[in-house]
Amino acid sequence: MDNLELIKRRAVQIFSEEDLDKKIKSGKKLTIKLGADPSRPDLHLGHTVVLRALKKFQELGHEVVFVIGDYTAMIGDPSGKSKTRPALTYEETRKSGETYFKQVTKILDKDKTKVKYNSEWLSKMNFGDVISLASKYTVARILERDDFKNRYENNLPLSMHELLYPLMQGYDSVALNADIEIGGTDQTFNLLVGRELQRDYNQEPQIVMTFPLLVGLDGKEKMSKSLDNYIGIDEAPEVMYEKAMKIPDNILYDYFNLTTDMDLKDVKELMEKDIVEAHKVYAREIIKLYHGEEAIKGAEERYKSVAKGAIPENIKEVKIEEKEIAITELLLKVGFAGSKGEAKRMIQGKGVKLDGKVVEDITLIVKMTEPSIIQFGKNKFVKISL
Amino acid sequence: MDNLELIKRRAVQIFSEEDLDKKIKSGKKLTIKLGADPSRPDLHLGHTVVLRALKKFQELGHEVVFVIGDYTAMIGDPSGKSKTRPALTYEETRKSGETYFKQVTKILDKDKTKVKYNSEWLSKMNFGDVISLASKYTVARILERDDFKNRYENNLPLSMHELLYPLMQGYDSVALNADIEIGGTDQTFNLLVGRELQRDYNQEPQIVMTFPLLVGLDGKEKMSKSLDNYIGIDEAPEVMYEKAMKIPDNILYDYFNLTTDMDLKDVKELMEKDIVEAHKVYAREIIKLYHGEEAIKGAEERYKSVAKGAIPENIKEVKIEEKEIAITELLLKVGFAGSKGEAKRMIQGKGVKLDGKVVEDITLIVKMTEPSIIQFGKNKFVKISL
Repeated sequence: MDNLELIKRRAVQIFSEEDLDKKIKSGKKLTIKLGADPSRPDLHLGHTVVLRALKKFQELGHEVVFVIGDYTAMIGDPSGKSKTRPALTYEETRKSGETYFKQVTKILDKDKTKVKYNSEWLSKMNFGDVISLASKYTVARILERDDFKNRYENNLPLSMHELLYPLMQGYDSVALNADIEIGGTDQTFNLLVGRELQRDYNQEPQIVMTFPLLVGLDGKEKMSKSLDNYIGIDEAPEVMYEKAMKIPDNILYDYFNLTTDMDLKDVKELMEKDIVEAHKVYAREIIKLYHGEEAIKGAEERYKSVAKGAIPENIKEVKIEEKEIAITELLLKVGFAGSKGEAKRMIQGKGVKLDGKVVEDITLIVKMTEPSIIQFGKNKFVKISL
Repeated sequence: MDNLELIKRRAVQIFSEEDLDKKIKSGKKLTIKLGADPSRPDLHLGHTVVLRALKKFQELGHEVVFVIGDYTAMIGDPSGKSKTRPALTYEETRKSGETYFKQVTKILDKDKTKVKYNSEWLSKMNFGDVISLASKYTVARILERDDFKNRYENNLPLSMHELLYPLMQGYDSVALNADIEIGGTDQTFNLLVGRELQRDYNQEPQIVMTFPLLVGLDGKEKMSKSLDNYIGIDEAPEVMYEKAMKIPDNILYDYFNLTTDMDLKDVKELMEKDIVEAHKVYAREIIKLYHGEEAIKGAEERYKSVAKGAIPENIKEVKIEEKEIAITELLLKVGFAGSKGEAKRMIQGKGVKLDGKVVEDITLIVKMTEPSIIQFGKNKFVKISL
């Protein structure tokens, strides 16, 4: 599969695939835009979903431009109501931009990556230019954006200036004459504004590609720093390892699919065979990607010793004959559960750990390849020897 | 009745009367704002409703500021769709301002009248300032304006920039630190935006006063140049006279009330006694106001000769004994109508004229004070002699 096919495979929507193929075929060096929020420069795995697509565009010879939304960041929250959005200084936004560049070039090609600040063009616009920009869009069209629509229809506060933000972001595409803009599916509306504005400014409308949002470690919300359900690409290898072990089983496949280039057939097989091992493989892969292969061993050992650090010395050892055994059976055998029912309930209540990792699946088959430690509740431990 | 009472009596709404009294009592010289549209500098009687109120404020010692909306006028219609709103040049807006000043000072005191152009402050605002301004207002509040609401709810085009216009107009009040703004009832929403924005910019909110809209000569729509149902204050005395004679009977009282200072009790009496004479009195009054007493006679004679110009020479004369006679009776007597029913229908169809003025009232009592000419349909004329 070539790079373009790899990009397309992961995209959720493309406006339009036909135009994309045409642009790619034109042989022209394309400008791929990605908007960046200057107040949160710490990139996590969620961001890498689009970054990996950008990387493939670079391999096809195209240039990536990060647009740091410094202009609105410097304005902050003009209503003064939100303490969560303090106005940033010029220096702070520049520092954010540098941090972005440093972080994204862990994935991207430095020579084909540019950082732009949108104050460069937005600060030059006067009231008349704003009027002219706003005239390109109807109120109905802006209020189609889900969060606007919901707030307007439910009588929740929605200030006039908020309607201008998508236009600013869209105007960034005009200023860059962007060929392609990519983003998460939650950005679809904003990216399409750019596409439509370019048409109004007599430019060829950008291709819009959206990518899936990575669910965070809580298994529920989109990965984000503020929800503390993230794995940062700048985090230490041992932290990455520990967090990777906590990825809920049912979304581990998405992590492989969206954040690595590993063969998905192999991944599926491994996950079916040994979900704990699959977590370890994933942990090693992301450490390799962001810290290099040499960082894996230390992280793994550190993780084990930390996991063991919580385990009292001289714990009971139980010898198990079976090479594979159901987790509920195992809990009965070692004497932690009085019945399979009790074992199931304890697993469902996240009370059972295997080698430091919470067991989520009540049908888990434990493969006995090396000695393991089972924890039951807070204080019961047992070492399974082969 | 003092000036303040006279102003209040004609106002439709005051936000709030209590605040108005307080400001007036403070003894401070107040700034009274009136917005002016630079693309239509020809003032007509409709405009004089508020101008007369401004005049009374001046007599109380206050200053009137006309704000010429030159900034948006120079932008024109940014969508390029409307040919009715061509962008004006700087020179054109300045000329409009001068014309305004020349026209309004026919009513207002020159020394207490200023003209300001809103480009003075709006052209200095950048995108960030616009964001900040827009943040003071919610979308819900802006969409309360009737024409916005209707267009939004009926899926008619409503462009984003249109929502910014009331904010610009409101910001004019902030820039002037206006104490009072007055306008027609159709401006209520916009004037209140100014009041609310001032509060947000930590100014004492302006008093908003709205005045009735004068219905035009068509008896239906608000007086406006584009509907050609207006009497311009710059029009020649004879044109004024002729147009005044055409004011529909049922709104003549409003013209007296809103555009003159005549005693309304006298007006009512006169209108009941002789509606044609009442029109003549009104015609004389507005000529006196805008051209001086000396212009009345010429206009009146000119009007009569023009009215007579349409009448064939050597028309039949009929002598009437009665001093007062119902119009239907009269039409029977002179032989124009075969029945009172026919007479009524002809009047209702606007087919009967008395001294050049269309008879509207089928119950009109004609007073025989001087010879009159009755016209029935296009070609039948008769001279009534006493």
